[in-house]
Amino acid sequence: MADLIEALREGLPPEALVDDPEVMAAYGSDMAGFCPAGAPAVVVLPRTVEQVQHVMRTATATRTPVVAQGARTGLSGAANASDGCIVLSLVKMDRILEINPVDRIAVVEPGVVNATLSRAVAEQGLFYPPDPSSWEECTIGGNIGTASGGLCCVKYGVTAEYVLGLEVVLADGRLLTTGRRTAKGVAGYDLTRLMVGSEGSLGIVVRAVLALRPEPPRPLVLAAEFPSAQAACDAVCRIMEGGHVPSLLELMDRTTLRAVNDMTRMGLPESTEALLLAAFDTADPAADLRAVGELCTAAGASEVVPAEDAAESEMLLQARRSALVALERVKGTTMIDDVCVPRSRLGEMLDGVAEIAEKHDLTIGVCAHAGDGNTHPTVCFDASDPQESARARVSFDEIMGLGLELGGTITGEHGVGVLKKDWLAQEVGPVSLELHRGIKQAFDPLGLLNPGKLF
Amino acid sequence: MADLIEALREGLPPEALVDDPEVMAAYGSDMAGFCPAGAPAVVVLPRTVEQVQHVMRTATATRTPVVAQGARTGLSGAANASDGCIVLSLVKMDRILEINPVDRIAVVEPGVVNATLSRAVAEQGLFYPPDPSSWEECTIGGNIGTASGGLCCVKYGVTAEYVLGLEVVLADGRLLTTGRRTAKGVAGYDLTRLMVGSEGSLGIVVRAVLALRPEPPRPLVLAAEFPSAQAACDAVCRIMEGGHVPSLLELMDRTTLRAVNDMTRMGLPESTEALLLAAFDTADPAADLRAVGELCTAAGASEVVPAEDAAESEMLLQARRSALVALERVKGTTMIDDVCVPRSRLGEMLDGVAEIAEKHDLTIGVCAHAGDGNTHPTVCFDASDPQESARARVSFDEIMGLGLELGGTITGEHGVGVLKKDWLAQEVGPVSLELHRGIKQAFDPLGLLNPGKLF
Ligand SMILES: Cc1cc2nc3c(=O)[nH]c(=O)nc-3n(C[C@H](O)[C@H](O)[C@H](O)COP(=O)(O)OP(=O)(O)OC[C@H]3O[C@@H](n4cnc5c(N)ncnc54)[C@H](O)[C@@H]3O)c2cc1C
Ligand SMILES: Cc1cc2nc3c(=O)[nH]c(=O)nc-3n(C[C@H](O)[C@H](O)[C@H](O)COP(=O)(O)OP(=O)(O)OC[C@H]3O[C@@H](n4cnc5c(N)ncnc54)[C@H](O)[C@@H]3O)c2cc1C
Repeated sequence: MADLIEALREGLPPEALVDDPEVMAAYGSDMAGFCPAGAPAVVVLPRTVEQVQHVMRTATATRTPVVAQGARTGLSGAANASDGCIVLSLVKMDRILEINPVDRIAVVEPGVVNATLSRAVAEQGLFYPPDPSSWEECTIGGNIGTASGGLCCVKYGVTAEYVLGLEVVLADGRLLTTGRRTAKGVAGYDLTRLMVGSEGSLGIVVRAVLALRPEPPRPLVLAAEFPSAQAACDAVCRIMEGGHVPSLLELMDRTTLRAVNDMTRMGLPESTEALLLAAFDTADPAADLRAVGELCTAAGASEVVPAEDAAESEMLLQARRSALVALERVKGTTMIDDVCVPRSRLGEMLDGVAEIAEKHDLTIGVCAHAGDGNTHPTVCFDASDPQESARARVSFDEIMGLGLELGGTITGEHGVGVLKKDWLAQEVGPVSLELHRGIKQAFDPLGLLNPGKLF
Repeated sequence: MADLIEALREGLPPEALVDDPEVMAAYGSDMAGFCPAGAPAVVVLPRTVEQVQHVMRTATATRTPVVAQGARTGLSGAANASDGCIVLSLVKMDRILEINPVDRIAVVEPGVVNATLSRAVAEQGLFYPPDPSSWEECTIGGNIGTASGGLCCVKYGVTAEYVLGLEVVLADGRLLTTGRRTAKGVAGYDLTRLMVGSEGSLGIVVRAVLALRPEPPRPLVLAAEFPSAQAACDAVCRIMEGGHVPSLLELMDRTTLRAVNDMTRMGLPESTEALLLAAFDTADPAADLRAVGELCTAAGASEVVPAEDAAESEMLLQARRSALVALERVKGTTMIDDVCVPRSRLGEMLDGVAEIAEKHDLTIGVCAHAGDGNTHPTVCFDASDPQESARARVSFDEIMGLGLELGGTITGEHGVGVLKKDWLAQEVGPVSLELHRGIKQAFDPLGLLNPGKLF
């Protein structure tokens, strides 16, 4: 280990190396529960591509595993350290290198925080859509690592849609350039998309060319209260079937609403079974809200409240953005699932989750990117109660099983990490898994990059 | 060879096998020029997944190369037969299996023709955007194989954006399922996107889940005449920088306009250096056309003509769609290049192409998906004149070199095939190429799938 640190020092400034165990402890794990994490040998915070290359060359020479980290807001344990690894934190590589309004691209380092980029491009009338609820903290590198989603995906798509090209340091320190700066391009295999969502297992992203859009008008939000989750899900289906294109279509159940009220004193309606939020950033959002409001009423909504202005709309969005954090306060600990089903099966998914909660005598709050069928059933439990914890874990797995039964996926946006490793195998099957291993072998023959994650 | 055909017969109905050399000759090559093609041992036209599996198992057992084919409208030689190969034509697997307006997906077999799918989904108020100009002939399997673009990509993106999941028969006959039916999903590596654009080199696509959108309003088109290509490209930059979102932004140069007129007697303006077509399918397209018209005028347009109605708009689009075919008539033969540059470099690209044409004393017509920076410089030449043919080939390569110099890619949408194989290596470099080979090895260790193409 002394050798490792010595070798690292040769190509890094002193402040880029952390080996104080107390400081290192902070880099142990991301925000997922129930995920084992090891103790890193050293934490490295490089500032340049060359420094990252030096780290990877050293890792290869010494056969040391490397775990890439962004802001560690991940929810699958994918950024957790493994014993004796180099934690490679990219947060100091946080420069926005270019914003180009004609080409509608940004070129960034991986440590740029999502919200920082969003604000910087907005200043030029541009829009970087991917907006995970953690956007004030999470990094573009982490977003690429997990293929993050967010609230506006239902209209604008996920991170994968916005990554045009990458620079990647490979396991052996060589630099790979993928993709392009152009709007289109099909030269060779799509290595860019292969990197997106690969959870630090194929290479270290050190630079990204991101696609931007022109900034849309500010959205107007409608809130609709429903007497049952079924009715709310039915409204979602009617809205999408009706050809509407909301920029957000979110669902919160009563447990979630109550939790948000408790934390924020927002005064959201708690007497309802499900609240649907629909937003439109179109030229005439009020007209869209009227049409969607009617569909909600027809589906059984007891109340339909269009926001009057941007401020009211923003408040409703804030409520949704704080849902996960609020649910954490219910019983101290949460496990946030991330099952995505075809939206036509959303009602069955929510009913099934309610049954699972009842069966295990648990509180499970559900919020969902409903327009995408992407649910976040969030198991709230008391981690100091071993029995409740065990039931929580079982219910978490049952929820994934239910998602697969309904033709869905175990993860819509949070990734696999350690948490869902066994389930990945179940979802994709042995043929796919063999190809995963083959690809991993081509990129990282020594298996140094984020070992033990994903598969 | 007799053995091969015997073995194939065991799992295929007689009508699925073609070994008459005259009939087989029709399956030799796609629509690219200058690409060598071999003589297939046999042509197979399966109707079921099981039949495709049988073909691949037989190919593996007998070590016979397999070339997948759709409609053979490809422009890179990617679908060309190699000597002694099995040509696996998917055109008889042409069923649309499902169109689901709530989930906004279609499930199709690979042989479905693009336009057939587009019309079928339109009947349900839905929209499958990728629209290569060959859409009346080309197949979804071919579109996936090449990662096709088209006219509306500038707003709606390319084929890759619309492929959610695939069923793929691997080289050894095993069935791989990738991706999903859900709107989102990040479970494991993105094998779906890896397949898209892989030109039949990684597996045979036998089923695809495609994302659909609600049908947009019918577009209104504006035509603007410019005194120079520079001025037209400048207008493109101002339009995109101004935050406009045209559903089409196409450029045709004088050579192209003249060729289209000669073929169609459409009476397009020939006295102008470049014609720009901009379309909007927004709620108020006339307003958008006004704004864009003003930008065109400011950039130097000599005339700006907004179409009055859908019929006029459709005529202008037809002109653009027939450009490549029309250019073919100029001197009997064409080589269509497909270089995509950052749109901010479009003017330099067009000037450079004009210089190349002059230097080699050639006619090169340019049409371009200008909003995406994707140019199709089309070298028109007399194939019976060996010197002119040689100059055509040289100019074609110089155009790619120019594209790379300008930060672009050698292929925006037509793919690499045989035609651009050497250039792929130049564009992506040795590190990337090594990874390409590693991935190929993981999917097709015996190298049976479309050997000699791509890299
Ligand atoms: C309150 C809260 C709300 C959230 N809401 C959402 C949401 O709405 N949508 C959503 O998708 N997620 C959400 N998340 C999850 C999380 O924020 C995202 O997964 C985010 O993308 C992680 O970014 P990060 O910078 O924290 O990455 P980390 O957690 O540090 O890392 C994530 C993964 O990326 C890899 N990685 C990081 N940087 C690099 C790099 N430079 N090169 C290669 N690999 C790298 C890591 O190894 C790891 O596998 C939420 C999390 C919290 C805590
Ligand atoms: C007049 C004209 C206009 C065109 N306009 C455009 C345009 O605007 N945009 C554009 O992008 N292209 C355009 N093209 C090129 C061509 O039409 C596209 O590349 C199209 O996608 C090819 O489809 P195809 O069915 O003809 O496939 P083919 O040419 O038969 O095959 C193309 C590739 O896909 C592979 N393939 C086919 N089916 C499968 C399968 N089931 N599984 C795996 N691999 C498979 C083949 O092996 C080959 O590598 C044009 C061509 C012409 C002639």
